[in-house]
Amino acid sequence: MASRRNDAYVKASSGTCLASLLANSVPPGTQRNMRNNPYGQRPEDFLSNVGNFKIIESTLREGEQFANAFFDTAKKIEIAKSLDEFGVDYIECHMDDARLAVETGVDGVDIVIGTSSFLREYSHGKDMTYITKTAIEVIKFVKSKGIEVRFSSEDSFRSDLVDLLSIYRSVDQIGVDRVGIADTVGCANPRQVYDLVRTLKGIISSSTEIECHFHNDTGCAIANAYAALEAGASLIDTSVLGIGERNGITPLGGLIARMMVADREYVMNKYDLLKLRDIENIVAEAVNVQIPFNNYITGYCAFTHKAGIHAKAILANPSTYEILKPEDFGMSRYVHVGSRLTGWNSIKSRADQLKLSLDDMQCKDITKKIKGLADIRELTMASFSLLVLLMLLG
Amino acid sequence: MASRRNDAYVKASSGTCLASLLANSVPPGTQRNMRNNPYGQRPEDFLSNVGNFKIIESTLREGEQFANAFFDTAKKIEIAKSLDEFGVDYIECHMDDARLAVETGVDGVDIVIGTSSFLREYSHGKDMTYITKTAIEVIKFVKSKGIEVRFSSEDSFRSDLVDLLSIYRSVDQIGVDRVGIADTVGCANPRQVYDLVRTLKGIISSSTEIECHFHNDTGCAIANAYAALEAGASLIDTSVLGIGERNGITPLGGLIARMMVADREYVMNKYDLLKLRDIENIVAEAVNVQIPFNNYITGYCAFTHKAGIHAKAILANPSTYEILKPEDFGMSRYVHVGSRLTGWNSIKSRADQLKLSLDDMQCKDITKKIKGLADIRELTMASFSLLVLLMLLG
Repeated sequence: MASRRNDAYVKASSGTCLASLLANSVPPGTQRNMRNNPYGQRPEDFLSNVGNFKIIESTLREGEQFANAFFDTAKKIEIAKSLDEFGVDYIECHMDDARLAVETGVDGVDIVIGTSSFLREYSHGKDMTYITKTAIEVIKFVKSKGIEVRFSSEDSFRSDLVDLLSIYRSVDQIGVDRVGIADTVGCANPRQVYDLVRTLKGIISSSTEIECHFHNDTGCAIANAYAALEAGASLIDTSVLGIGERNGITPLGGLIARMMVADREYVMNKYDLLKLRDIENIVAEAVNVQIPFNNYITGYCAFTHKAGIHAKAILANPSTYEILKPEDFGMSRYVHVGSRLTGWNSIKSRADQLKLSLDDMQCKDITKKIKGLADIRELTMASFSLLVLLMLLG
Repeated sequence: MASRRNDAYVKASSGTCLASLLANSVPPGTQRNMRNNPYGQRPEDFLSNVGNFKIIESTLREGEQFANAFFDTAKKIEIAKSLDEFGVDYIECHMDDARLAVETGVDGVDIVIGTSSFLREYSHGKDMTYITKTAIEVIKFVKSKGIEVRFSSEDSFRSDLVDLLSIYRSVDQIGVDRVGIADTVGCANPRQVYDLVRTLKGIISSSTEIECHFHNDTGCAIANAYAALEAGASLIDTSVLGIGERNGITPLGGLIARMMVADREYVMNKYDLLKLRDIENIVAEAVNVQIPFNNYITGYCAFTHKAGIHAKAILANPSTYEILKPEDFGMSRYVHVGSRLTGWNSIKSRADQLKLSLDDMQCKDITKKIKGLADIRELTMASFSLLVLLMLLG
């Protein structure tokens, strides 16, 4: 197969082995959280894996396609170890790296071929008959060596549906371990993804797992991953900070944020969330980028509350305006005071933190004064404290 | 209504007026692009507005709730003018700003109240009977002044469905111009959004528009906006770079990226896409953040291609690995050479750019050499060119 990528993957040490992956399908209706979490699995999605998913971490394969990425061997090992400690299920890497990393050979091989008319014409130039025939030969060879094998189409969402289903059924029948779909150009939307995965699920054997790979060009990489899990996929490709070709793929941290809402217990038990920030820092430094200001979970404003109406309620009960708990990730909540959006409740809370005894009237006076001042410039915490002290004195 | 926000909006000069907004519902089956764009409107979504949406730009309201945001009057005017030139339909701002900006009064008023049990208990403490009664009073008053009025629930996705539908029907019956739903904590996923909007659409009059506001805590703000439009909403709240409370809301540029795929013609005709980068630069500078490396459309790697297999096809036909065209936004494509992922096709292309006449064998030799060198460090364009010259000489 002329243009297949030579990628491979290794099972992370804390990940489950294939046998358990295949054994863990839960009978319909018995999933945890199905009834007591309104943001979890929907009762009608009896094939849903939102509470039963695995992560294929591809920072060392897709991530190396990011413009800035160049990992030397030491950095690759550092990243792989961190991801392993975090608890991802598989680590995808280039075949050469896999050879280096695992002396005894890789655990599995990915076979990827572009199936859209675009890729068939401009990339490898092969027709569907050739693709199917060659895929079957390669899969049979790999399986004869006792190695796990995945078959994935590339640019699946711009491929002809009949061609696509036809080749998936063929490779499924000869015993491929899992099949992958890839939104290579980032064009897919969640309802399309749900429909394609549901359809695919219906034509392959129940023991064949579905893996999904989503690019983020049009902002749906996380939502598409979630829709795929709802439809019965069980493996999602991620990379740290989403780095990859163009603006990248489903980010590890963003997927974790989404899945925490769907099944907090599953995520907390499986992944070491306190390590997320460190892994992101390692990769950001290695590829010479800043963590985006609005990054999921670890962006510096992810748990910052500013508007007065929000701050008041957050102080009374954080769940009011937070669906994620900062402490789950070793992060801190920050309620912003010193802007014209400041409410007197956050002033009172800040005064209490400073151990100043102010009554409600005093707090409201200070709030009014701050709102006036903050129209001119933002107040720092220090100048805010000074202001409170001056008002108390005079 | 004790805790409603005092927000308002002004129609952008290039935006359509309410009369035309109400008149533009297209009969089922006649939408443009319905049959010829596989990523556009789905035939079964006969209420879809993916080819007929409007943007409510909220950088001056939601955006000011971003941790770093403090806009003085001059900056507000600069931002508002840029957004107007870009072509957004409405600009949402704080009531005080609206008073300053529009001497003759605002075009519309937003009435927002938290309807989830969290907000009812910890924010304003009102019950649903009180909320409904007060909402009706306020709406009647505003309407009597001849001003457009929107009613929105806050934290809609954690509100009781029966309560929610009940209050929407009440405000619809007394003639509210539009209703809004808000995922205030960023917990919603696209299929939930689709279902809620479809249900809401069924209980309000066909002339009442639906506006949606999505936070991005769990990475679905763009996908949720798209699902809402598919279900029949027609107005989406955005902010520049997505700035807002916590990690923000649907970003203007990200929504544009998504909608370009659904209906390029509509987006190109309506919005001045060449201005997107400037608006983002103005806001990024004003709030003192870097444009994220992976930002939609304008991030520096959004149109960068690195892997050899990608680069070859991109050079033959950019659509192979690009769903968006960089030139539509005044951006450039960059095919990366000088890494160990480099293929000989991109070396050949670079050599042609440099007006060096190399045959295929020479290009393959150079590629091999580059792959070796690039294992040690990334090659700059300059050192790459030097290498090619040295090889030609020797």
